[in-house]
Amino acid sequence: MKQLNVAIIGYGFMGRAHSNAYRKVNNFFDLAYQPVMKVASARQADQLDAFAANWGWQETDTDWRRVVERPDIDVVDICAPNNMHLEIASAAAAAGKIIACEKPLAMDAAEGQRLVDAVAASGKPNMVWFNYRRVPAIALAKQIVDEGRIGRVFHYRSRYLQDWTISADVPLGGNTLWRLDKSVSGSGVTGDLLAHSIDTAMWMIGPIASVAATTETFIKERELQDDPGKRVTVEIDDACAFLARFAGGAMATFESTRYARGRKNENYFEINGEKGSVAFNLENAHELGYFTHDDEGHLRGWRNIQVWDSDHPYMEHWWVPGCSIGYEHTFINALADFLGGLASGTKTCPDFADAQATQVVCDAVLQAADERRWVDL
Amino acid sequence: MKQLNVAIIGYGFMGRAHSNAYRKVNNFFDLAYQPVMKVASARQADQLDAFAANWGWQETDTDWRRVVERPDIDVVDICAPNNMHLEIASAAAAAGKIIACEKPLAMDAAEGQRLVDAVAASGKPNMVWFNYRRVPAIALAKQIVDEGRIGRVFHYRSRYLQDWTISADVPLGGNTLWRLDKSVSGSGVTGDLLAHSIDTAMWMIGPIASVAATTETFIKERELQDDPGKRVTVEIDDACAFLARFAGGAMATFESTRYARGRKNENYFEINGEKGSVAFNLENAHELGYFTHDDEGHLRGWRNIQVWDSDHPYMEHWWVPGCSIGYEHTFINALADFLGGLASGTKTCPDFADAQATQVVCDAVLQAADERRWVDL
Amino acid sequence: MKQLNVAIIGYGFMGRAHSNAYRKVNNFFDLAYQPVMKVASARQADQLDAFAANWGWQETDTDWRRVVERPDIDVVDICAPNNMHLEIASAAAAAGKIIACEKPLAMDAAEGQRLVDAVAASGKPNMVWFNYRRVPAIALAKQIVDEGRIGRVFHYRSRYLQDWTISADVPLGGNTLWRLDKSVSGSGVTGDLLAHSIDTAMWMIGPIASVAATTETFIKERELQDDPGKRVTVEIDDACAFLARFAGGAMATFESTRYARGRKNENYFEINGEKGSVAFNLENAHELGYFTHDDEGHLRGWRNIQVWDSDHPYMEHWWVPGCSIGYEHTFINALADFLGGLASGTKTCPDFADAQATQVVCDAVLQAADERRWVDL
Amino acid sequence: MKQLNVAIIGYGFMGRAHSNAYRKVNNFFDLAYQPVMKVASARQADQLDAFAANWGWQETDTDWRRVVERPDIDVVDICAPNNMHLEIASAAAAAGKIIACEKPLAMDAAEGQRLVDAVAASGKPNMVWFNYRRVPAIALAKQIVDEGRIGRVFHYRSRYLQDWTISADVPLGGNTLWRLDKSVSGSGVTGDLLAHSIDTAMWMIGPIASVAATTETFIKERELQDDPGKRVTVEIDDACAFLARFAGGAMATFESTRYARGRKNENYFEINGEKGSVAFNLENAHELGYFTHDDEGHLRGWRNIQVWDSDHPYMEHWWVPGCSIGYEHTFINALADFLGGLASGTKTCPDFADAQATQVVCDAVLQAADERRWVDL
Repeated sequence: MKQLNVAIIGYGFMGRAHSNAYRKVNNFFDLAYQPVMKVASARQADQLDAFAANWGWQETDTDWRRVVERPDIDVVDICAPNNMHLEIASAAAAAGKIIACEKPLAMDAAEGQRLVDAVAASGKPNMVWFNYRRVPAIALAKQIVDEGRIGRVFHYRSRYLQDWTISADVPLGGNTLWRLDKSVSGSGVTGDLLAHSIDTAMWMIGPIASVAATTETFIKERELQDDPGKRVTVEIDDACAFLARFAGGAMATFESTRYARGRKNENYFEINGEKGSVAFNLENAHELGYFTHDDEGHLRGWRNIQVWDSDHPYMEHWWVPGCSIGYEHTFINALADFLGGLASGTKTCPDFADAQATQVVCDAVLQAADERRWVDL
Repeated sequence: MKQLNVAIIGYGFMGRAHSNAYRKVNNFFDLAYQPVMKVASARQADQLDAFAANWGWQETDTDWRRVVERPDIDVVDICAPNNMHLEIASAAAAAGKIIACEKPLAMDAAEGQRLVDAVAASGKPNMVWFNYRRVPAIALAKQIVDEGRIGRVFHYRSRYLQDWTISADVPLGGNTLWRLDKSVSGSGVTGDLLAHSIDTAMWMIGPIASVAATTETFIKERELQDDPGKRVTVEIDDACAFLARFAGGAMATFESTRYARGRKNENYFEINGEKGSVAFNLENAHELGYFTHDDEGHLRGWRNIQVWDSDHPYMEHWWVPGCSIGYEHTFINALADFLGGLASGTKTCPDFADAQATQVVCDAVLQAADERRWVDL
Repeated sequence: MKQLNVAIIGYGFMGRAHSNAYRKVNNFFDLAYQPVMKVASARQADQLDAFAANWGWQETDTDWRRVVERPDIDVVDICAPNNMHLEIASAAAAAGKIIACEKPLAMDAAEGQRLVDAVAASGKPNMVWFNYRRVPAIALAKQIVDEGRIGRVFHYRSRYLQDWTISADVPLGGNTLWRLDKSVSGSGVTGDLLAHSIDTAMWMIGPIASVAATTETFIKERELQDDPGKRVTVEIDDACAFLARFAGGAMATFESTRYARGRKNENYFEINGEKGSVAFNLENAHELGYFTHDDEGHLRGWRNIQVWDSDHPYMEHWWVPGCSIGYEHTFINALADFLGGLASGTKTCPDFADAQATQVVCDAVLQAADERRWVDL
Repeated sequence: MKQLNVAIIGYGFMGRAHSNAYRKVNNFFDLAYQPVMKVASARQADQLDAFAANWGWQETDTDWRRVVERPDIDVVDICAPNNMHLEIASAAAAAGKIIACEKPLAMDAAEGQRLVDAVAASGKPNMVWFNYRRVPAIALAKQIVDEGRIGRVFHYRSRYLQDWTISADVPLGGNTLWRLDKSVSGSGVTGDLLAHSIDTAMWMIGPIASVAATTETFIKERELQDDPGKRVTVEIDDACAFLARFAGGAMATFESTRYARGRKNENYFEINGEKGSVAFNLENAHELGYFTHDDEGHLRGWRNIQVWDSDHPYMEHWWVPGCSIGYEHTFINALADFLGGLASGTKTCPDFADAQATQVVCDAVLQAADERRWVDL
């Protein structure tokens, strides 16, 4: 196995998820590359050290600029908040590094385009961690679509529902709640959750042609996490719903919120076509709904495919049929695909250009909501 | 249409269900016979009159003996409590009437055999109202089995769970709670609920060869409904579970109780065979689970067949695809089958002889529980 | 019981559903009024006669004008296609009749307003058959909302999905497929299915303030049912999706189609509020999902309320706990409410004015789709 | 952190699951002990070396006797087939090692008792890996029972259904199919699957007092995996069902099979008590069904608790609410409990004595099936 030195920037929730992936990927996948957990970087030294010690990063450095320029580093993995993606990824591209960047690609499409240009200039492999493509059931849905089992698509139906910001007492900003601070996150549910939904949708059935949207900020003011007495205006979209027309003719509804009481992580999509339908809900991630009109009339019904057999995507690498994997495995599967792509020389999707297509739709959605009109893409 | 004069004996819950069936069957089924709601009979005159007025029975008579001997009566429908089945059905058979009798057939197999002999002597059509055979999804399960889609059967799994007698304050006896009084009901859940389960099971996969069982009476004493101060010992089986081996080799578990908190009417069965499986739950009566190993490997999954398409059993007679029918329709479907059988001269199952086979198993189950041993049939 | 002479106009699917309701309502509800099935009217004499004979309508008349003017008629029930509602209901109002009209109220809001004015002038009771308000689980959802258990509403999510027009071989027009002929139906899924969704939504959480929409006609041309060789352009909306903002601030998505493979009658809605959520799917009509944040933290979860206990809306009139009712019972429940309202002198919702509010939203939705802009109400 | 040198014996499926646990436990749990993956032992050198290299075991040794006697080894983890548990565990106990042994404890209760005596003599901590106790939802069920929310227990209902041996072409024996060889496994589904069910049941509601059972071997003869031409008689129980009475009075049904078409890993149990019920299915391992009669009447319903909030057992150690864990995490949770117990000096359940209680029930079940009678414990 060839070793690949990795630098990770950021130690938050995604920093943990990626670290776990680096530690495990070679236990389960037979790969030409072995990632070496070389150096972790973030601003706060003590938390960084604890993070590195816990996960086995060999070194730490609070200066990410120095890290991305180290000649011994092969891969820069960006888990820093969204507002730092542009700067870090640009520097890493300039330094000729392979880049794996958390989603969304950037604060907006303008930034995203600069990053697409930067990696194009470097010519190095790059990936954006839209990890849900690596849920085996979602990969199976894609396979079913590609096998022609759905036929002409009439409808795409997507929602991503959570409920963790309903309380007005949830503060904003700081290390863990920067997703509520627009200056750091770029947007609310649109960039955080709908970006996943849009990435999945376009992967499944192609580009989006036009959108109409509405957004809302239900809680208008929150306390700062880092300055408890101080209250600030919330500027992100707490919720966003949009209609879309795909280039291929399908109609679509998308919705996302963090105010759907009782929905913890309902990342749902459904495709209805002439010959069949598929339906997926992340809250039952090991299952895929599939309906085919090809079944005999009196025996037709939605199939609940439990996606844990050895002939299902990714599953031969894991345990035995009937044994579930979980959230973290989507990152390990993604990493395995990325390392496989490095070895074979084929690009791993979604790369920066793919992620930029999603970013462009996100921008159009927010614009459509602001301007109360349909926006064509 | 030929008219068929019906006499109903009993006005309780089943009296209502049957009356509704007589009123509706010709609205939905194209039949050679039209039942005429001629006379209703029961002991308590005032309640009988109210019942007859509500449902449109033309006459009432508190003397069932007189009723069953009326020459203008073609069909005697027995909805009286179990301890009256023997006497009424014997008289009706002796009078040469067509008989439709509520289940269970009798208090025990000895009584049941006398009734089988009586109707054999009369040579007249007869039916026992095991209405669940007429749930479209159960009829579809039977069709799937008969089409050979299950193959060699390994397992049968049955339960019938309710929770309405958990409170020690529920009284016993009287008009509405005679099911808790062994002298009237013959047994508890075994005759009331397991009789359904056994009838379905043997209809699906054939005769039962041996059983081992256990029963329990959780609430040992209850107040009499008709004599509130007085407490009596409860003698019925509150719950019964048994193992069975079918003549065809399949293993089975059966269980029934009225003490399963949260289970209102869970009449469930599942068949596992070499080629496929079916599963049904009365609490979602319009659905049938079906799994076939014949599906392509990566697309296999339990199908949820919504049994409301026009090519499903009974459904062409009802509304349009996607519109559910309910509990009461099982009786109407059963009646339509019975009237159809009268017209065609073919017997309608289950008749007294079929119901007696179930009665024999019920007796064996109670004996096996009493004697703590396997009983062979 | 006071008798109420009913004239029914139309013998199609709704004619059957209403006839069944008239036949059954007094068997199950204790009411001051008893509807008498006096006369049925429709254009085709032979089919009308068969219909009347099957259901027990005493007389028939192919001239509906004569019927609505009969002095012995108390109630005119309109089941004729949508394009006849205006004329028939206007005449019935002018004749001073009580009116029960199928939904949608009219071809469009302009017609609807004329009808609202007409019944206002007559001062007689009137109702529009939005039967789904009488699904016990939907009535329970309303009760839960009214009990304050949801709190401030953030989201309303609605879809009504069917799949029966996917085949290009389905013809258009005639007796049974007039819903595909815009000149008869007024619109496609918007008036047929979304009208239900909108009625339910506004009943639950109040008026809609603005909408953005998109519609599609997937199959552009169909054969005429009554003129098999001839193909015509399909003008109805095969599918319609819209975003809405409620006056109370909630965001909403609505969608309806007849092209959702595998969805037979998925009339779904979900309400997410500060304190709790409810969710309903007509395909499991006896169930209501309910989530309350008031439950203890480690025990919180969506409850699956099986709406067949005696303390649930309407259910004390039916069988016993655990016994399901079906599609047809929504009409019987509606009729019982209407008859109850006649007796008590209180209006039964939705009346023509309520139905007109829905009609106005339907029109706005279609306009928003045509003009690709938000329409304020 | 104190280091704890571990020797693992066996490299099969459980060897992988345990290795993964050793690698990950300290990343997620804050523990006083850190396991060191010191040495792996098994008979076949090349496969052992590959296993050790893949997982990071520092050394290998094909002689397990030498391994368990190494003074630098603190913990012996036994993943070898069942027929080797007695010998290895006895030697490890004699050498004064801490022991973690896979389930079932032994080939039968006689062997199990010798092991209980051996660890009692050594006085060292010991654990048997009944990993399903560490499914968060099962731990939550136990918590609910212990909180008194179920009340007097009436019923326990358990099944463990798989379908992987239906094909007569599945061979027997060798490295991966020794579970079908009675001389290696001791029994079929009884020791492999029902042992889990029995362990869970007795943990939940106490000891079992008596059993009646039936077993079957559906495929009578199979080819040897290691000697393809040769066919041998299958001696294990392919399926086993039993009735049980608990010492506390509850009735129970248990069933297990590898012949339930479409059931991949349905490890189900349900408890019905006076006040409430719980239900669990390993195929949806992140969910727990809970019904409480304490809810208001019209709002009662089974709750689907998604067991991934931070106040649920084990979940604070993992990702964020709404992110699932999988099969492998049950072993990591178990290991964390075991290491925590070593630190605190409290025994971790189930230890050898607890596992022996399960073994005794397994033996009684097989005896009851053989002798066709109830066996009292």
